[in-house]
Amino acid sequence: MHFTEEELREQVSKLEGWKLEPNMMVRKYMFNEYMKGIAFVDEVAAISEAFDHHPHITIDYKTVILRLSAKEESGLAALEFRQAHEFNEAFDKTR
Amino acid sequence: MHFTEEELREQVSKLEGWKLEPNMMVRKYMFNEYMKGIAFVDEVAAISEAFDHHPHITIDYKTVILRLSAKEESGLAALEFRQAHEFNEAFDKTR
Repeated sequence: MHFTEEELREQVSKLEGWKLEPNMMVRKYMFNEYMKGIAFVDEVAAISEAFDHHPHITIDYKTVILRLSAKEESGLAALEFRQAHEFNEAFDKTR
Repeated sequence: MHFTEEELREQVSKLEGWKLEPNMMVRKYMFNEYMKGIAFVDEVAAISEAFDHHPHITIDYKTVILRLSAKEESGLAALEFRQAHEFNEAFDKTR
């Protein structure tokens, strides 16, 4: 299932913290301890292996940024929104 | 202990894979499995906590890039070279 630009905006608006970028979605996660951010990255990695789709990850001390690009050439789809939702759930458990 | 520009170049030349950038040193590590890169990042995090000095980390699928900036205002010092050496040892064990 693929989305129009309007549908994309609506989908991303339902996901806390995520922002839409061209053919990509981005969220910055902040932690109060460095090792909590690292534990979160471990969860992100496990989820990414399960989806066989790996976000670009940046760790800048207690800040972790995920950049999830479209897996399919046709653009961001339901897959990315499910995956981003799982990242958010992992964040809620880890922080 | 701080280094002249020439000493810095000599120190970094002894560290496999590391390159000098302004007030910073950088190495790109490549893995044959995504989860090996993640295990390496876990090791990097533990080393960084021990040194109380945290490199900027980028995970781009099976490639991990570490950017280690100078902890002290006076610039890169023996500390960063010891730490980079430990990162390299962790890489040799993980890959």
